[in-house]
Amino acid sequence: LNSKARTTTVGVVRTDILDFTVGRDRQLDMALLNADCIGTAAHVTMLSRMPVKPSVFTAPQCAKVIRALGQIMIASARGRFAISLEDQDVHLALERQLTARLGALGRNVHTGRSRNDQVALDLRLFAKEQILAAIDEALNLADALIAQARRHLMTPMVGRTHMQPAMPSSVGLWATAHAESLVDDALLLKNAFELNDQCPLGSAASYGVPLPIDREMTAELLGFSRPIHNVLYANNARGKIETIILAAMGQVMLSLAKLAQDLMLYTMPEFNYFSIPKEFCTGSSIMPQKNNPDVLELVRAKAATVFAHEMAVAGIVRGLPSGYNRDLQETKGPFMDGIATTRGCLEVMSLLIQGMEVHAPQMRAAFSPAVFATDRALELAAKGMPFRDAYQHIKAHMDELAAMDPGDAVLRKTHWGATAGLDLDAMGKRLEATRRFAASERMRYHRAVTRLMNVQYPLHD
Amino acid sequence: LNSKARTTTVGVVRTDILDFTVGRDRQLDMALLNADCIGTAAHVTMLSRMPVKPSVFTAPQCAKVIRALGQIMIASARGRFAISLEDQDVHLALERQLTARLGALGRNVHTGRSRNDQVALDLRLFAKEQILAAIDEALNLADALIAQARRHLMTPMVGRTHMQPAMPSSVGLWATAHAESLVDDALLLKNAFELNDQCPLGSAASYGVPLPIDREMTAELLGFSRPIHNVLYANNARGKIETIILAAMGQVMLSLAKLAQDLMLYTMPEFNYFSIPKEFCTGSSIMPQKNNPDVLELVRAKAATVFAHEMAVAGIVRGLPSGYNRDLQETKGPFMDGIATTRGCLEVMSLLIQGMEVHAPQMRAAFSPAVFATDRALELAAKGMPFRDAYQHIKAHMDELAAMDPGDAVLRKTHWGATAGLDLDAMGKRLEATRRFAASERMRYHRAVTRLMNVQYPLHD
Amino acid sequence: LNSKARTTTVGVVRTDILDFTVGRDRQLDMALLNADCIGTAAHVTMLSRMPVKPSVFTAPQCAKVIRALGQIMIASARGRFAISLEDQDVHLALERQLTARLGALGRNVHTGRSRNDQVALDLRLFAKEQILAAIDEALNLADALIAQARRHLMTPMVGRTHMQPAMPSSVGLWATAHAESLVDDALLLKNAFELNDQCPLGSAASYGVPLPIDREMTAELLGFSRPIHNVLYANNARGKIETIILAAMGQVMLSLAKLAQDLMLYTMPEFNYFSIPKEFCTGSSIMPQKNNPDVLELVRAKAATVFAHEMAVAGIVRGLPSGYNRDLQETKGPFMDGIATTRGCLEVMSLLIQGMEVHAPQMRAAFSPAVFATDRALELAAKGMPFRDAYQHIKAHMDELAAMDPGDAVLRKTHWGATAGLDLDAMGKRLEATRRFAASERMRYHRAVTRLMNVQYPLHD
Amino acid sequence: LNSKARTTTVGVVRTDILDFTVGRDRQLDMALLNADCIGTAAHVTMLSRMPVKPSVFTAPQCAKVIRALGQIMIASARGRFAISLEDQDVHLALERQLTARLGALGRNVHTGRSRNDQVALDLRLFAKEQILAAIDEALNLADALIAQARRHLMTPMVGRTHMQPAMPSSVGLWATAHAESLVDDALLLKNAFELNDQCPLGSAASYGVPLPIDREMTAELLGFSRPIHNVLYANNARGKIETIILAAMGQVMLSLAKLAQDLMLYTMPEFNYFSIPKEFCTGSSIMPQKNNPDVLELVRAKAATVFAHEMAVAGIVRGLPSGYNRDLQETKGPFMDGIATTRGCLEVMSLLIQGMEVHAPQMRAAFSPAVFATDRALELAAKGMPFRDAYQHIKAHMDELAAMDPGDAVLRKTHWGATAGLDLDAMGKRLEATRRFAASERMRYHRAVTRLMNVQYPLHD
Repeated sequence: LNSKARTTTVGVVRTDILDFTVGRDRQLDMALLNADCIGTAAHVTMLSRMPVKPSVFTAPQCAKVIRALGQIMIASARGRFAISLEDQDVHLALERQLTARLGALGRNVHTGRSRNDQVALDLRLFAKEQILAAIDEALNLADALIAQARRHLMTPMVGRTHMQPAMPSSVGLWATAHAESLVDDALLLKNAFELNDQCPLGSAASYGVPLPIDREMTAELLGFSRPIHNVLYANNARGKIETIILAAMGQVMLSLAKLAQDLMLYTMPEFNYFSIPKEFCTGSSIMPQKNNPDVLELVRAKAATVFAHEMAVAGIVRGLPSGYNRDLQETKGPFMDGIATTRGCLEVMSLLIQGMEVHAPQMRAAFSPAVFATDRALELAAKGMPFRDAYQHIKAHMDELAAMDPGDAVLRKTHWGATAGLDLDAMGKRLEATRRFAASERMRYHRAVTRLMNVQYPLHD
Repeated sequence: LNSKARTTTVGVVRTDILDFTVGRDRQLDMALLNADCIGTAAHVTMLSRMPVKPSVFTAPQCAKVIRALGQIMIASARGRFAISLEDQDVHLALERQLTARLGALGRNVHTGRSRNDQVALDLRLFAKEQILAAIDEALNLADALIAQARRHLMTPMVGRTHMQPAMPSSVGLWATAHAESLVDDALLLKNAFELNDQCPLGSAASYGVPLPIDREMTAELLGFSRPIHNVLYANNARGKIETIILAAMGQVMLSLAKLAQDLMLYTMPEFNYFSIPKEFCTGSSIMPQKNNPDVLELVRAKAATVFAHEMAVAGIVRGLPSGYNRDLQETKGPFMDGIATTRGCLEVMSLLIQGMEVHAPQMRAAFSPAVFATDRALELAAKGMPFRDAYQHIKAHMDELAAMDPGDAVLRKTHWGATAGLDLDAMGKRLEATRRFAASERMRYHRAVTRLMNVQYPLHD
Repeated sequence: LNSKARTTTVGVVRTDILDFTVGRDRQLDMALLNADCIGTAAHVTMLSRMPVKPSVFTAPQCAKVIRALGQIMIASARGRFAISLEDQDVHLALERQLTARLGALGRNVHTGRSRNDQVALDLRLFAKEQILAAIDEALNLADALIAQARRHLMTPMVGRTHMQPAMPSSVGLWATAHAESLVDDALLLKNAFELNDQCPLGSAASYGVPLPIDREMTAELLGFSRPIHNVLYANNARGKIETIILAAMGQVMLSLAKLAQDLMLYTMPEFNYFSIPKEFCTGSSIMPQKNNPDVLELVRAKAATVFAHEMAVAGIVRGLPSGYNRDLQETKGPFMDGIATTRGCLEVMSLLIQGMEVHAPQMRAAFSPAVFATDRALELAAKGMPFRDAYQHIKAHMDELAAMDPGDAVLRKTHWGATAGLDLDAMGKRLEATRRFAASERMRYHRAVTRLMNVQYPLHD
Repeated sequence: LNSKARTTTVGVVRTDILDFTVGRDRQLDMALLNADCIGTAAHVTMLSRMPVKPSVFTAPQCAKVIRALGQIMIASARGRFAISLEDQDVHLALERQLTARLGALGRNVHTGRSRNDQVALDLRLFAKEQILAAIDEALNLADALIAQARRHLMTPMVGRTHMQPAMPSSVGLWATAHAESLVDDALLLKNAFELNDQCPLGSAASYGVPLPIDREMTAELLGFSRPIHNVLYANNARGKIETIILAAMGQVMLSLAKLAQDLMLYTMPEFNYFSIPKEFCTGSSIMPQKNNPDVLELVRAKAATVFAHEMAVAGIVRGLPSGYNRDLQETKGPFMDGIATTRGCLEVMSLLIQGMEVHAPQMRAAFSPAVFATDRALELAAKGMPFRDAYQHIKAHMDELAAMDPGDAVLRKTHWGATAGLDLDAMGKRLEATRRFAASERMRYHRAVTRLMNVQYPLHD
């Protein structure tokens, strides 16, 4: 806080203090500009139809405001929108721009709403698009894994528990295990989407307004399934919905971290089961021979980051009293960063899995007789020896244990979901169902915005 | 680790080391005994129908095992079941008990499954019942809040933002805001239930078995919607599903913490908006006058605990490679504690809300003219002054601001979800839909178990 | 909360509510009984010397109380002390016992103090002993690692970065790296000890008392370095000091987790650098051949648990207003569990490291020519080629790279702290300095208590 | 990851992948440029004195490099230094710049070190300055609180527990409680400083180098107390030291959050004990009357953020195997952000406390007779009634309890650390001791750098 800042003020507020309170908003809010314009369009449209005399906005005034909003969105897409320190945030920046373009019309758009209202709405609209994109990306990675599974369906691979060799497994089983995890994650993202798909607009400063605003109308104009009912809850849900979304993103990261950890193990030269393309590996500044799986390490690390973001948000809102509290602003950074991190990792892992190579001979060489011990015990059990006795028998004669052909062992596990019983069609169906959900929700939102703004959405500049 | 323990072993393992590895399992697993019996019954039933010669179990043998399992469940309900250090966990304790009762039949129940399998199943069955109970309890608290809302629907109460007086609100709005949060939480619990409602059985040691086991059959016998497909994912999902469930519990705790925080503020003598019954308050060992809202403070604190439990579980599993790792055992404590904590808080808060008293006069006395400033600005806006100008006008003349009648102010906010626009029927409908879901799922599970075990479930001793 | 409990009360408080508020205190507080007796002895001694008429306690009365306290400590050591639900906690249980034995004298020991006071003191005394024990245990493990280092000082081992082979290293370097981490941890524990070594007694209910109590005297009687000055801060520091101590324990766990992770990697059969004794490994219920490093996995997992405990405590206290809040009770569990977990892991890892075997041939076999690439580049650099050019040269000729003798490579790194430059004496000196600190602090405390209680401390029953 | 990026590479690495791996480094590393130059100067100086033939650097060559480093630092202070995507980080950027200016000399500075080495060193140097600054700022805030305490030393204020009125207290007690917390925090920062004050340089890629480098010399040139001994530990300590520092910062934030929470409560109009200057408060976009304590809310929230940063770092490094792993890069953001956040909060809270006003009449009006209950019970106890009886007596006659003069009550608590026994001199002495520590360490570092670089440090452009 430099001394010059201390001597200046914006209104009554000292510049240095304002800078502290504004924090990262001037950067982060840039990602909310579209949502803020769209939300404003819905609000003004609703105001123009509100049964009061005089109208807050006439229909032509409303059209004028929406036209200006569209222009601002396009300008912003071209890099011509900025939030000044005086603006503090995208909401006041937009009001200032509208006022500059439209005068009194601009000074009137805030009738019956508050910034809390707007930020709650903007974040929900932002989340809508982000979650749908993350669903696609998670399913793309699942697809890449399934493609690898198809390619190496029955390639034998030692299955491990406790990091130690355990039982015969296959590349098909390994790859689809990771894929199925992502398919579940996509469901979690869908659940988060549905919780998010409630419109908070009309909460104003958490307590509604003495005007006959129509919250169902704005919800519908914006393509939401319904408004949040209680206006105080509309605000109390800030931080809560962010935590829910980050928890779903966190699950994606758990899936990615496990996949990354497996790959880091199995690309060590002692294994060499898989190799990842050279163009994904970086070297060392001192060791000429190095070819490191940095991408995987970063994905593993970023899983911790995303959970820390969830904890930050949950920690911030836990124990806050009802109504807007400025603490909520501090949730914006971890929320947006957590989503961006997850999406970035999904995308890079998809590319990596597509380029990954499988080394069947190395995998086959890793089978020791011990890996077949359980299969042998189950052979005895199938012949009528109580399993515990069979187990003890094999354990007592480990030295005599004969190896089996790994390929045969893999083929002998035929039950549903095992190496020779994988049901890729069933997986594909679950995957496609969630993909269709995402596509249809995206369509619904784009249509609603296009209708509302009279501008093709998403914008193509 | 005392020196005596060091000199003894169980098998080859030193007693002190075994004690370290067993950890809290001997206590925690007691809550899984029923699930372990039920799962064993399903597994043995499936084995008895498996198309192999000789049968692993004949139908009469199967019936015998199931009868013994039922007896063990009843014995356990009467406090006559214990897990010894040698047993290590409920799974081996049960196998030992079955073997003691049934000899070779007991030594055969482990055919085609592993403990990892069992614990994964037991935790899903345990979670089924716990989540459904938590849904009920969350909705009970929502009901208690709605009942208070009905009683004091239009009682004016200062709405706050930034902990400072903001706008006219009502007890009805306040109480239903908290209720709606819980209704959303119940949905989250439902989502977690549905993710949990996939049967992991048949994964064995994560890699399936070379026997024609029927995983769809066991899933159905146990009342699951479907088996988890990939057997490796069935194990990899350990810790993941626990995190998902704890995240939903954490959301409940966020709702409770906010409610508790509001009540702590508003029961301070400076407010005295609410009072909680004396039988919920404890005194001080030194201060004779004290009457403290300990329950509320503990609920606020326990919200942090539940999130820490979620972090513990996520932290433990993040970055584990595929396949069972013993780390997973360490997730059991935070998982079970997190659920129990949440349920305990829900129950105690329901009682407290039922007994809470509302002091309308104190609430009314708290209205200062400033609380109506926004309403006044909106009056000007409704008459045609651009809102920003109206806002500036009121801001410049705060000293002249006349008070309004709080009751009138509350009545004037008629839009959906505002003080005079609360739609308790709509809330009730959402609430009841989730309640019906829980009831029907509970019925489905109880019926399945009763059919499988031929014992009325839940047991009534 | 069963219906019977609802109809009964303790005082005015309902039994079920009391049970909720008491939580785990009845169990956890058993570990605080000695501290509570010792603290009471100091408080009563001070009261007996307080310059007021009539004396709160005469010298003979004081002696009588202290005698009774000693008897209670001994009874407790024999398992004859219990905390009832009515007692709620150890403090009221002790007062009740004293009153039962001594009548009015017992009803007078609470003069000028509060339970908050007592629990703050008890936890600091408890922490004193725990931290000192943890220091010893951390240094014991460091010693065990150094002993292994001495035994295999120059045994070549491939050093890794990014989990990939990097440069020649040695068992000596590897083992002492872990040891040095623990030596730093012991310093952190020492720092936490010193922060903890401030006596909170005399804070009463956070605001002191209108009696001429002598806080320096009680601090000295109890062997503290000084009292906490501000009586409100004495209470505000609750949770804070616990977080500080848990953060130090967390650092120990970071050291252990890294050690455990290394061992899990290097005991995989693909490496087989180390083996851990069979009596530390448990088997599988299904796989006869298994021999799993469960201890290591649990240590890795428990590191996450201890950090979650730290987060729980920090989360609970963050944002609490000044003065005692009941939330603080909820910190007791994670605090005590976190310490016990850390100490248990230290002890088991010491045993494991002592029993660990090193397989030099396997380590030597793992050296590929690439591991020497950097050494080769530095040879060129030493001859005058700019390092970046040497690096590029080697990188371009990786295929021609000749291996070196690993033993020679290890011997050539002679600078301080490298494979051939390890200064075990310097390490030993740092280690011993901290060990002496712990011994002398333990002595100081035991002497103070022995003098105060007129009973040899620690008690030997 | 756009399609154009996919088709280009830097070396073999795809541009989009490189961008993913570089992450925030290009921004964050700008704060490390000075440290990187200083560390390079020390390394080159040591190389120039290393007893090898030919010299890696002659003395004149060394001087030339150092001159260039000084110029780069000055250029950077003027905004003329940038890190390109190809550079990836500050280390390669600096090497490139040196090579551009000095040719072969630049290509030689990396002899015997690695980037891991450099970043470990840079972060320690960065942390040195940051911790010392944070100590000063924490003590400045403590000073501001003590100044308020002096001004209102005996102003009566109701002391609270459980957020409820408890006992008579004073502004002096309240303010110095917060100050003492910060004085303890400054000690924690000092402890973290001392742990940090070990030089990692010479670790190279974690395994040392086959050159006779002198690690004591570089440590001394850089003003460190000593080198880290074990070169592998020098790298393993990455993340560990960051967690330690963040834990200390977290303690500062706990102190600030408590202070902020108290102020938020006591600035509510229902209390109005304190007011904070208007230039620290921001308004509402909809409510004309609003004057919100945003700064306090943000400080409360940021306490959660800093702990989440600590968890992120601990989570990332927990369970990593020995040696550098790229995961460590991901710790840089939370580490730097956590420090910057803490320092920003300290600074703004100092200003706020300086400007805070105390309203004695409102504080005095808040005293109800019940607040004196304990004082009354202790009066009876002082006259000889056993305290528990006195307590019960007062409890039974609460209605008859007479008020006392709050000023008298405050004066009657004369023991050390109570309202009338505050020892501001003792506090001041502890505070000054830590301040002197920080000043002398800063001096030591600046002198070392000035001597090494032959440029006055810190730079004044």
